[in-house]
Amino acid sequence: MYKLALIGFGVVGQGFLELLSEKEDILRKNYQLEFQVVAISDAQKGSVFSGQGIDFRKALEWVKAGKSLNDLPGEKNGMDALSTIESCGADILFEATWTDIKTGEPALSHIRKALEKGMHVVTTNKGPLARYGKQLIEEAESRGLILRYEGTVMSGTPLLNLIRECLAGCEILEARGILNGTTNFILTKMSEGQSYEEALKTAQKLGYAEAVPDADVLGWDALAKVCILANTVFGASIIPDPEKLPCKGITGIRKEDIENAKREDQIWKLIARVYRENGAVKVRVWPEKIPLTDPLAGVTGAKNALTIKTDALEEITIAGFGAGRTPTGYAMLIDFIDIHKNLRRR
Amino acid sequence: MYKLALIGFGVVGQGFLELLSEKEDILRKNYQLEFQVVAISDAQKGSVFSGQGIDFRKALEWVKAGKSLNDLPGEKNGMDALSTIESCGADILFEATWTDIKTGEPALSHIRKALEKGMHVVTTNKGPLARYGKQLIEEAESRGLILRYEGTVMSGTPLLNLIRECLAGCEILEARGILNGTTNFILTKMSEGQSYEEALKTAQKLGYAEAVPDADVLGWDALAKVCILANTVFGASIIPDPEKLPCKGITGIRKEDIENAKREDQIWKLIARVYRENGAVKVRVWPEKIPLTDPLAGVTGAKNALTIKTDALEEITIAGFGAGRTPTGYAMLIDFIDIHKNLRRR
Repeated sequence: MYKLALIGFGVVGQGFLELLSEKEDILRKNYQLEFQVVAISDAQKGSVFSGQGIDFRKALEWVKAGKSLNDLPGEKNGMDALSTIESCGADILFEATWTDIKTGEPALSHIRKALEKGMHVVTTNKGPLARYGKQLIEEAESRGLILRYEGTVMSGTPLLNLIRECLAGCEILEARGILNGTTNFILTKMSEGQSYEEALKTAQKLGYAEAVPDADVLGWDALAKVCILANTVFGASIIPDPEKLPCKGITGIRKEDIENAKREDQIWKLIARVYRENGAVKVRVWPEKIPLTDPLAGVTGAKNALTIKTDALEEITIAGFGAGRTPTGYAMLIDFIDIHKNLRRR
Repeated sequence: MYKLALIGFGVVGQGFLELLSEKEDILRKNYQLEFQVVAISDAQKGSVFSGQGIDFRKALEWVKAGKSLNDLPGEKNGMDALSTIESCGADILFEATWTDIKTGEPALSHIRKALEKGMHVVTTNKGPLARYGKQLIEEAESRGLILRYEGTVMSGTPLLNLIRECLAGCEILEARGILNGTTNFILTKMSEGQSYEEALKTAQKLGYAEAVPDADVLGWDALAKVCILANTVFGASIIPDPEKLPCKGITGIRKEDIENAKREDQIWKLIARVYRENGAVKVRVWPEKIPLTDPLAGVTGAKNALTIKTDALEEITIAGFGAGRTPTGYAMLIDFIDIHKNLRRR
């Protein structure tokens, strides 16, 4: 019986608890996995703790009804994130707060505090992994703890679990792909005939792009994600700084470029790459024209995809949605199942 | 220390031992996985057994030099497959003999004998799984043994391991994809301007197609593979009979069809499907025109791909090579690692 604590109760945290609710019986039956949620803490939505387990379905309803968790009956209310982690006695921390790529905070402090307290950690937060991925893995391993972060690169579309479980024993040579759904959506709309400005507006209307879309359209988000790959799968320590790394977005792509590519049976994609050059791990985010015969070519709309080159399998490509309430919640669930499998192996 | 027996020492069996040779140190270091090959038996290349382990690197060289394993120094030579399985005392059987879709033999008898003797089994052989997948899984489970067959559907491109490990807890709703590399290669050549007859000849020259190409071009191979999915992932018991199931190949597709599709931003693919209808699991192999915005559209040449629909992740697509010495050898290796991980969990 695992005691779980959840920090951050927005779209992802709620998506995760919804899946736990839906799949509680299957998890018990298929994986002998049992759990209690002992704490939920959110900077806006309040916090509740109960050492014997809180009614997390009620917490979901409560928050959906617009009520504060501070008023949900429990052993203690109102604790902030760090106090919750300090005192809740959970076995696994699920971190789903907002992302700050530059500092990794506040998630970085949450993760470190949880590791100090002997908790395994699951996070969907790009910030801490993009910048401190290698260190955090080492900090967890040195304590015999498991850190999982499937949701940080392609949401629930299996990528890090795929590399670890399904490519075990393979040498991962390099990877390239589409790691930002917003820009891929805009490029898809442009290839359907919209101008950049029209496509951006469509993306904003549908909630795919922010009002200030820089982090997506200038390639920063894709850069952070490819740095997570570099710093965790390739063992590098690259700082995801768009000013110091080769990083170019899609703002310079015009209708004519799209049409010219079409005539050559090609298509524009914002391609993130991680590769080795003279022994060093390198990353790069750049718009590229790729042929229609590339497995990445048909990856359209808000989808993401990565082509991984290995020694034994040449290339494999994995594609799927790179965001969303249920997919990202599922990223937390698969990491939870993976931690459980690993602990049973010990 | 696992004792391994290998039945069938053709391209796949040799590819597997080459990988074991190359990765022996990594397997020990990263997975605490140690092994001895105690027997190799092949209907053409002879057989060798040694309870204390044979020098499998020497066996590889021996066979590459055209010599019979019957002459390789060991404890006993010349045993056929069933006698080898009966007496070798291995922990895991690796089955890589030729495929007979109708009867599943001789692999079916090899697998059943191994299970009787208490061995875990890894196979790349489509025959037994396509027809008896559900029964074989039950036979293994009832004895507490593990049966793995990653190589049967998309070679080493992770599919069955992906579903089991990376989609754990997901409900698999349906799947559709390209499961035959030969026909996909022919269709790709046709979209480059060749006629069906020219493309088939090219495929035959490159060794992708047999002299009698029926099993590929009439859809039978793809049907067998989608039946493996139906009978193992979806729990059905479908007999892969192309005369009784909806199965159509690519022989009716003409140059004009290809060109017409192009004008509509579409592309012809031989699509294998497994789905549920009125509670029953159904399969179907049929040529389909799909839009260029489909993740399967860019899967060209001899590659395979499958789009899997689940409750939590909508669709994910996995693509990669569906055949070849090293990829299929790797399918055996990843299954071996997976069995090891499972046994450590017990």
